[in-house]
Amino acid sequence: MARKNKADEPATGEGRFSYDGLDRVIHEKARLGILASLAAHEDGLVFNDLKQLCSLTDGNLSRHLGVLSDAGLVRTRKSSQGSRAQTTVRLTANGRRQFVDYINVLERVVADANIDTKASKKTRSRPSTKWSPA
Amino acid sequence: MARKNKADEPATGEGRFSYDGLDRVIHEKARLGILASLAAHEDGLVFNDLKQLCSLTDGNLSRHLGVLSDAGLVRTRKSSQGSRAQTTVRLTANGRRQFVDYINVLERVVADANIDTKASKKTRSRPSTKWSPA
Repeated sequence: MARKNKADEPATGEGRFSYDGLDRVIHEKARLGILASLAAHEDGLVFNDLKQLCSLTDGNLSRHLGVLSDAGLVRTRKSSQGSRAQTTVRLTANGRRQFVDYINVLERVVADANIDTKASKKTRSRPSTKWSPA
Repeated sequence: MARKNKADEPATGEGRFSYDGLDRVIHEKARLGILASLAAHEDGLVFNDLKQLCSLTDGNLSRHLGVLSDAGLVRTRKSSQGSRAQTTVRLTANGRRQFVDYINVLERVVADANIDTKASKKTRSRPSTKWSPA
Protein backbone atom coordinates (compact mmCIF):
# COMPACT_ATOMS: atom_id res chain seq x y z
CA MET A 1 0.00 0.00 0.00
CA ALA A 2 1.53 3.30 -1.10
CA ARG A 3 1.71 6.17 1.34
CA LYS A 4 -0.45 9.04 0.23
CA ASN A 5 0.75 11.64 2.70
CA LYS A 6 4.14 13.16 3.32
CA ALA A 7 5.29 13.48 6.92
CA ASP A 8 4.28 17.12 7.09
CA GLU A 9 0.80 16.66 5.66
CA PRO A 10 -2.23 16.16 7.88
CA ALA A 11 -2.73 12.68 9.30
CA THR A 12 -5.36 10.85 7.28
CA GLY A 13 -6.31 7.29 6.49
CA GLU A 14 -8.26 5.39 9.13
CA GLY A 15 -6.30 2.32 10.14
CA ARG A 16 -3.36 3.27 7.91
CA PHE A 17 -0.96 1.99 10.60
CA SER A 18 -3.11 -0.69 12.23
CA TYR A 19 -1.24 -3.52 10.44
CA ASP A 20 -4.16 -5.89 10.83
CA GLY A 21 -2.32 -8.66 8.98
CA LEU A 22 0.20 -9.07 11.81
CA ASP A 23 -1.43 -12.21 13.19
CA ARG A 24 -0.75 -12.34 16.95
CA VAL A 25 -0.01 -16.07 16.92
CA ILE A 26 2.81 -15.52 14.41
CA HIS A 27 3.93 -12.07 15.60
CA GLU A 28 5.07 -13.21 19.05
CA LYS A 29 8.87 -12.92 18.97
CA ALA A 30 9.78 -16.50 19.89
CA ARG A 31 7.14 -18.00 17.59
CA LEU A 32 8.34 -15.78 14.74
CA GLY A 33 11.80 -17.27 15.21
CA ILE A 34 10.41 -20.81 15.30
CA LEU A 35 8.44 -20.29 12.08
CA ALA A 36 11.40 -18.65 10.33
CA SER A 37 13.60 -21.62 11.33
CA LEU A 38 11.05 -24.11 10.03
CA ALA A 39 10.50 -22.14 6.82
CA ALA A 40 14.24 -22.49 6.21
CA HIS A 41 14.16 -26.26 6.79
CA GLU A 42 11.37 -27.74 4.71
CA ASP A 43 11.89 -31.30 5.91
CA GLY A 44 11.53 -30.24 9.51
CA LEU A 45 13.87 -29.85 12.45
CA VAL A 46 14.43 -32.02 15.48
CA PHE A 47 13.37 -30.44 18.76
CA ASN A 48 16.91 -29.87 20.03
CA ASP A 49 18.14 -28.19 16.84
CA LEU A 50 15.09 -25.92 16.82
CA LYS A 51 15.67 -25.10 20.49
CA GLN A 52 19.27 -24.14 19.73
CA LEU A 53 18.48 -22.07 16.62
CA CYS A 54 15.88 -20.06 18.55
CA SER A 55 17.77 -19.90 21.89
CA LEU A 56 14.76 -21.25 23.77
CA THR A 57 14.45 -23.51 26.79
CA ASP A 58 12.72 -26.90 26.50
CA GLY A 59 9.70 -25.52 28.36
CA ASN A 60 9.37 -22.39 26.27
CA LEU A 61 9.77 -24.22 22.97
CA SER A 62 7.17 -26.82 24.02
CA ARG A 63 4.72 -24.13 25.04
CA HIS A 64 5.11 -22.15 21.80
CA LEU A 65 4.90 -25.33 19.68
CA GLY A 66 1.62 -26.09 21.43
CA VAL A 67 0.22 -22.70 20.39
CA LEU A 68 1.47 -23.09 16.81
CA SER A 69 0.13 -26.63 16.60
CA ASP A 70 -3.28 -25.61 17.94
CA ALA A 71 -3.38 -22.93 15.24
CA GLY A 72 -2.58 -25.57 12.60
CA LEU A 73 0.72 -23.93 11.62
CA VAL A 74 3.12 -26.74 12.61
CA ARG A 75 3.05 -30.50 13.06
CA THR A 76 5.19 -32.64 15.30
CA ARG A 77 6.19 -36.26 14.83
CA LYS A 78 7.64 -38.56 17.43
CA SER A 79 10.06 -41.31 16.44
CA SER A 80 12.68 -43.38 18.21
CA GLN A 81 16.26 -44.07 17.29
CA GLY A 82 17.29 -47.05 19.39
CA SER A 83 16.27 -46.24 22.94
CA ARG A 84 16.14 -42.48 22.27
CA ALA A 85 12.86 -40.76 21.44
CA GLN A 86 13.05 -37.86 19.04
CA THR A 87 10.53 -35.16 18.15
CA THR A 88 10.63 -33.57 14.72
CA VAL A 89 8.70 -30.40 13.89
CA ARG A 90 7.72 -29.00 10.53
CA LEU A 91 5.52 -26.31 8.99
CA THR A 92 2.15 -27.36 7.61
CA ALA A 93 1.17 -26.16 4.12
CA ASN A 94 -1.25 -23.78 5.84
CA GLY A 95 1.52 -22.61 8.18
CA ARG A 96 3.77 -21.79 5.24
CA ARG A 97 1.00 -19.83 3.52
CA GLN A 98 0.18 -17.87 6.65
CA PHE A 99 3.85 -17.17 7.30
CA VAL A 100 4.25 -15.78 3.77
CA ASP A 101 1.16 -13.58 4.28
CA TYR A 102 2.59 -12.32 7.55
CA ILE A 103 5.96 -11.53 5.93
CA ASN A 104 4.16 -9.49 3.27
CA VAL A 105 2.75 -7.22 6.00
CA LEU A 106 6.18 -7.03 7.64
CA GLU A 107 7.59 -5.85 4.31
CA ARG A 108 5.05 -3.03 4.36
CA VAL A 109 6.14 -2.00 7.87
CA VAL A 110 9.77 -1.90 6.71
CA ALA A 111 8.82 0.04 3.56
CA ASP A 112 6.84 2.55 5.68
CA ALA A 113 9.81 3.03 7.98
CA ASN A 114 12.22 3.53 5.09
CA ILE A 115 9.98 6.24 3.65
CA ASP A 116 9.84 7.80 7.10
CA THR A 117 13.62 7.77 7.54
CA LYS A 118 13.99 9.52 4.20
CA ALA A 119 11.30 12.04 5.12
CA SER A 120 12.89 12.78 8.48
CA LYS A 121 16.18 13.74 6.83
CA LYS A 122 14.59 16.94 5.55
CA THR A 123 15.48 19.95 7.67
CA ARG A 124 12.31 20.83 9.55
CA SER A 125 11.54 23.65 11.93
CA ARG A 126 11.18 22.33 15.47
CA PRO A 127 8.40 23.51 17.76
CA SER A 128 9.74 25.71 20.54
CA THR A 129 7.40 24.21 23.13
CA LYS A 130 8.84 21.97 25.80
CA TRP A 131 7.88 18.30 25.68
CA SER A 132 7.49 16.40 28.89
CA PRO A 133 6.97 12.70 29.62
CA ALA A 134 3.31 11.69 29.79
CA MET B 1 23.58 -11.08 8.94
CA ALA B 2 24.09 -13.44 6.02
CA ARG B 3 22.65 -16.91 6.15
CA LYS B 4 25.36 -19.52 6.15
CA ASN B 5 23.24 -22.61 5.59
CA LYS B 6 20.94 -23.59 2.81
CA ALA B 7 17.55 -25.00 3.72
CA ASP B 8 18.68 -28.57 3.12
CA GLU B 9 21.88 -28.34 5.16
CA PRO B 10 22.01 -29.36 8.82
CA ALA B 11 20.62 -26.86 11.31
CA THR B 12 23.49 -24.94 12.85
CA GLY B 13 24.06 -21.55 14.41
CA GLU B 14 23.00 -21.14 18.03
CA GLY B 15 20.45 -18.34 18.24
CA ARG B 16 20.42 -17.89 14.47
CA PHE B 17 16.65 -17.30 14.60
CA SER B 18 16.31 -15.80 18.09
CA TYR B 19 15.96 -12.22 16.72
CA ASP B 20 17.11 -10.71 19.99
CA GLY B 21 16.83 -7.18 18.59
CA LEU B 22 13.04 -7.40 18.41
CA ASP B 23 12.47 -5.32 21.54
CA ARG B 24 9.20 -6.45 23.14
CA VAL B 25 8.10 -2.89 23.93
CA ILE B 26 8.27 -1.98 20.22
CA HIS B 27 7.29 -5.37 18.79
CA GLU B 28 3.76 -5.39 20.26
CA LYS B 29 1.47 -4.95 17.26
CA ALA B 30 -0.44 -1.85 18.39
CA ARG B 31 2.72 -0.11 19.64
CA LEU B 32 4.47 -0.89 16.36
CA GLY B 33 1.65 0.91 14.56
CA ILE B 34 1.85 3.87 16.95
CA LEU B 35 5.61 4.21 16.47
CA ALA B 36 5.32 3.89 12.67
CA SER B 37 2.65 6.61 12.67
CA LEU B 38 4.81 8.92 14.77
CA ALA B 39 7.93 8.19 12.70
CA ALA B 40 5.94 9.41 9.68
CA HIS B 41 4.90 12.61 11.45
CA GLU B 42 7.97 14.23 12.92
CA ASP B 43 6.13 17.14 14.50
CA GLY B 44 3.83 14.79 16.36
CA LEU B 45 0.20 13.78 16.08
CA VAL B 46 -2.82 14.76 18.13
CA PHE B 47 -4.33 11.92 20.15
CA ASN B 48 -7.44 11.57 17.99
CA ASP B 49 -5.53 11.41 14.71
CA LEU B 50 -3.18 8.80 16.15
CA LYS B 51 -6.15 6.81 17.44
CA GLN B 52 -7.71 6.86 13.97
CA LEU B 53 -4.50 5.95 12.09
CA CYS B 54 -3.95 2.95 14.38
CA SER B 55 -7.63 1.92 14.72
CA LEU B 56 -7.36 1.94 18.51
CA THR B 57 -9.84 2.84 21.24
CA ASP B 58 -9.11 5.74 23.62
CA GLY B 59 -8.33 3.29 26.41
CA ASN B 60 -6.00 1.12 24.36
CA LEU B 61 -4.11 4.06 22.91
CA SER B 62 -3.69 5.61 26.39
CA ARG B 63 -2.42 2.34 27.81
CA HIS B 64 0.11 1.79 25.01
CA LEU B 65 1.27 5.42 25.15
CA GLY B 66 1.92 4.90 28.86
CA VAL B 67 4.18 1.93 28.10
CA LEU B 68 6.01 3.82 25.32
CA SER B 69 6.40 6.90 27.49
CA ASP B 70 7.75 4.87 30.44
CA ALA B 71 10.31 3.39 28.03
CA GLY B 72 11.32 6.90 26.94
CA LEU B 73 10.25 6.34 23.33
CA VAL B 74 7.48 8.98 23.10
CA ARG B 75 6.54 12.25 24.76
CA THR B 76 3.11 13.77 25.17
CA ARG B 77 2.19 17.42 25.48
CA LYS B 78 -1.09 18.82 26.67
CA SER B 79 -2.38 22.10 25.32
CA SER B 80 -5.74 23.82 25.08
CA GLN B 81 -7.46 25.42 22.13
CA GLY B 82 -10.19 27.59 23.61
CA SER B 83 -12.06 25.35 26.03
CA ARG B 84 -10.84 22.16 24.39
CA ALA B 85 -7.82 20.29 25.79
CA GLN B 86 -5.62 18.54 23.25
CA THR B 87 -2.87 15.97 23.68
CA THR B 88 -0.08 15.78 21.12
CA VAL B 89 2.31 12.84 20.95
CA ARG B 90 5.71 12.63 19.32
CA LEU B 91 8.73 10.33 19.15
CA THR B 92 11.74 11.20 21.29
CA ALA B 93 15.20 11.20 19.67
CA ASN B 94 15.87 7.97 21.56
CA GLY B 95 12.55 6.56 20.34
CA ARG B 96 13.46 7.28 16.74
CA ARG B 97 16.87 5.61 17.16
CA GLN B 98 15.38 2.51 18.78
CA PHE B 99 12.67 2.30 16.13
CA VAL B 100 15.32 2.39 13.37
CA ASP B 101 17.30 -0.36 15.15
CA TYR B 102 14.14 -2.45 15.44
CA ILE B 103 13.33 -1.97 11.74
CA ASN B 104 16.84 -3.19 10.87
CA VAL B 105 16.10 -6.51 12.61
CA LEU B 106 12.71 -6.68 10.88
CA GLU B 107 14.51 -6.29 7.56
CA ARG B 108 16.60 -9.35 8.46
CA VAL B 109 13.45 -11.38 9.21
CA VAL B 110 12.02 -10.40 5.81
CA ALA B 111 15.33 -11.21 4.08
CA ASP B 112 15.45 -14.61 5.82
CA ALA B 113 11.91 -15.35 4.69
CA ASN B 114 12.63 -14.35 1.10
CA ILE B 115 15.62 -16.70 1.01
CA ASP B 116 13.40 -19.40 2.47
CA THR B 117 10.65 -18.88 -0.08
CA LYS B 118 13.19 -19.19 -2.86
CA ALA B 119 14.70 -22.30 -1.28
CA SER B 120 11.31 -23.93 -0.84
CA LYS B 121 10.56 -23.63 -4.55
CA LYS B 122 13.10 -26.36 -5.26
CA THR B 123 11.47 -29.74 -5.81
CA ARG B 124 12.26 -31.77 -2.72
CA SER B 125 11.44 -35.36 -1.83
CA ARG B 126 8.76 -35.45 0.85
CA PRO B 127 9.05 -37.86 3.75
CA SER B 128 6.51 -40.65 3.48
CA THR B 129 5.81 -40.66 7.20
CA LYS B 130 2.51 -39.33 8.43
CA TRP B 131 2.58 -36.07 10.39
CA SER B 132 0.09 -35.58 13.16
CA PRO B 133 -0.77 -32.59 15.31
CA ALA B 134 1.27 -32.42 18.55
